[in-house]
Amino acid sequence: MVVAVRTDLRMGKGKMAGQVAHAAISTFEEARSKHRDWAEAWLSEGQSKIVVKVRSEKDLFMLRDEALDLDLPTALVQDRGLTQLPPNTTTCVGIGPGPAELIDRVTRGLKLL
Amino acid sequence: MVVAVRTDLRMGKGKMAGQVAHAAISTFEEARSKHRDWAEAWLSEGQSKIVVKVRSEKDLFMLRDEALDLDLPTALVQDRGLTQLPPNTTTCVGIGPGPAELIDRVTRGLKLL
Repeated sequence: MVVAVRTDLRMGKGKMAGQVAHAAISTFEEARSKHRDWAEAWLSEGQSKIVVKVRSEKDLFMLRDEALDLDLPTALVQDRGLTQLPPNTTTCVGIGPGPAELIDRVTRGLKLL
Repeated sequence: MVVAVRTDLRMGKGKMAGQVAHAAISTFEEARSKHRDWAEAWLSEGQSKIVVKVRSEKDLFMLRDEALDLDLPTALVQDRGLTQLPPNTTTCVGIGPGPAELIDRVTRGLKLL
């Protein structure tokens, strides 16, 4: 699993961690409903996840679209905007779990957060 | 759901976000197996989560024990120590999802990360 987070929003680290966790649970649920074998294998193998950064909302949507083209599970997270952000700000995207070679095709080149 | 994170480890924000996501998925899975109604209600109501801080490993274990005494789902996360931390460092604990009044009994008084 890879979660890509926007750095241009300058979220605090607690806020950011919550958003990443939200993406992780949502894309895991997506995997469980569409690729149950991928979800269960990932869970039993230690649920590895990598957090990377992107610079804009546009980059998040591009990543999501590329992942969907490969039939990978994805989840965009929109914040309800009760605290640090305007309502419905898209903060991050979760991709996977799924075959590493497919996820790599989408996320290679992105830097670790 | 509340995830409490150790601040004494001085993890980077990407590392921290990954650990919080790990705790969130693990305690959610724990809820799903033991209190399926709590897990499903939480998911359908927008999966709210709060990230708070603690100062030591001892504090994490105390929180976990208090949560277990109330029969809440919990998950301690140990890092495999491949990158920033020594192997098997306990980094955070996830508590819930579950009834807010029970979770509050354990986590009230903790500060937001």
